[in-house]
Amino acid sequence: MTDEENMQIITAIDRMIEFARRAKKNNRTVGLVPTMGYLHAGHMSLMHRAKKECDAVVVSIFVNPAQFAPGEDFEKYPRDTERDKRLMEKEGVEVVFMPSIGEMYPEGNSTCVSPEGDFAKSLCGASRPGHFKGVTTVVAKLFNIVAPDKAYFGQKDAQQAVVVKRMVRDLNMPIEIRVMPTAREKDGLAMSSRNTHLSGDLRRQALGLFRSLELAKKMVSRGEISSGHVKEEMRKILSEEKDVKVDYVEIRDADDLSPIAEVKSNTLIAVAAVVGTTRLIDNIIIS
Amino acid sequence: MTDEENMQIITAIDRMIEFARRAKKNNRTVGLVPTMGYLHAGHMSLMHRAKKECDAVVVSIFVNPAQFAPGEDFEKYPRDTERDKRLMEKEGVEVVFMPSIGEMYPEGNSTCVSPEGDFAKSLCGASRPGHFKGVTTVVAKLFNIVAPDKAYFGQKDAQQAVVVKRMVRDLNMPIEIRVMPTAREKDGLAMSSRNTHLSGDLRRQALGLFRSLELAKKMVSRGEISSGHVKEEMRKILSEEKDVKVDYVEIRDADDLSPIAEVKSNTLIAVAAVVGTTRLIDNIIIS
Repeated sequence: MTDEENMQIITAIDRMIEFARRAKKNNRTVGLVPTMGYLHAGHMSLMHRAKKECDAVVVSIFVNPAQFAPGEDFEKYPRDTERDKRLMEKEGVEVVFMPSIGEMYPEGNSTCVSPEGDFAKSLCGASRPGHFKGVTTVVAKLFNIVAPDKAYFGQKDAQQAVVVKRMVRDLNMPIEIRVMPTAREKDGLAMSSRNTHLSGDLRRQALGLFRSLELAKKMVSRGEISSGHVKEEMRKILSEEKDVKVDYVEIRDADDLSPIAEVKSNTLIAVAAVVGTTRLIDNIIIS
Repeated sequence: MTDEENMQIITAIDRMIEFARRAKKNNRTVGLVPTMGYLHAGHMSLMHRAKKECDAVVVSIFVNPAQFAPGEDFEKYPRDTERDKRLMEKEGVEVVFMPSIGEMYPEGNSTCVSPEGDFAKSLCGASRPGHFKGVTTVVAKLFNIVAPDKAYFGQKDAQQAVVVKRMVRDLNMPIEIRVMPTAREKDGLAMSSRNTHLSGDLRRQALGLFRSLELAKKMVSRGEISSGHVKEEMRKILSEEKDVKVDYVEIRDADDLSPIAEVKSNTLIAVAAVVGTTRLIDNIIIS
């Protein structure tokens, strides 16, 4: 019997909990990769790493309505479960946890996990009201259901990674958070399920985000330390693309996301922009 | 060696987590009794039950600043750790978890668990802003640290029990919440650490809460079903005591705390009042 034939699809929370209990009983470590599906190479790299570090890999696929602000793209978020399943089978995933919305949020469900520090209020937290509360709530639920030893997130969602790490620390969750490098297309565009919405010229213009980050990296490597100067030049690059509307260009401490006037070690340079009608984010860390 | 000599006092979160891991590894079930100390017969009955139902009993003593609203009695909340320890030793408690405030809330700690349903907004939630958020946050932290199979709460804090049960259900925590009957003094006064503040005539007047609930029970047993009538008569009783200021007299569904016009099965009758300067609560359930 091959790995492919063993992949279980679980939709009920109770069954997922049962799997987790059995794994613990058998001293098998569990790695969780929480996703919203429509998998790309970034997701696959998380699974790959989880497979190396844990006995069993669980991938959750759940397009979480709670993390979409009103008017955002919850309905048009891309979905392709059959393709996702084939990819996960190949990667040796043991369990796919795919609950329905009603399973995750039954009527009356109303307790939330809320990141209340400044780290959650700026950047995407400012443009997407309620987004990170939706993220921490669903991730806390997934952590309680799957009880993983380690959970894997992508660096592309830099603020999400900070928020989840803070939740784990603040609420004393016994879970190790692993953040993996951003996967990129050949030309540098950060992998994102939302890239599927970009066609023709918009796809080309979207590269502006990556180019602005490349420029920032070059400026810093040449000795520029003023956050203001770097941001200014990044904005210039982005303004060259007519369908790219900048949401933010920010330079922050990579751990607590506090603003910094001068680039130092462990600095996050992050950009968010709407390309056509698709909101994209990207970032680099100056180590 | 007797049980008394075995009781461990743990102040560090890491050591508490280690104990919990070892217990799990040895297939020992853990019962947690979260308290703010200054133990009374109500707390002891929770420990007694935990001892019957679990292999190891952990009691936490932590006067949680996050659940006191500004201007409340955090500073004057009674404390007597040495007396508490003697009582717990006698009851066969295996671990006392007594973290400092800095251990539980290190600088920058800012992720909260927040009960956002109507069940948390009325009653004590209305009079004590932030109280239940403080409760769910600290209880979530304790649950993650101690990883109990069962956790024990008193029915005296009826709304707290509802809020904690909802948190466990909403966030899929793998923990059974056990709610135990209110312990009472011989004359009926509900046991509370805060009763220590009541002297002389205030102690006598405090009994008004119990007497109002006794009256409600009698009215219902004689066929009264109007919540309005019952509340009215309860308020009359309470108004007879000059130093008792009613905060609320409420008749609610015992599960979701929604207001009900007519007493039915599973009805909570709850009262809160300030006696002198001490806020007391009490309740009964009409089954």
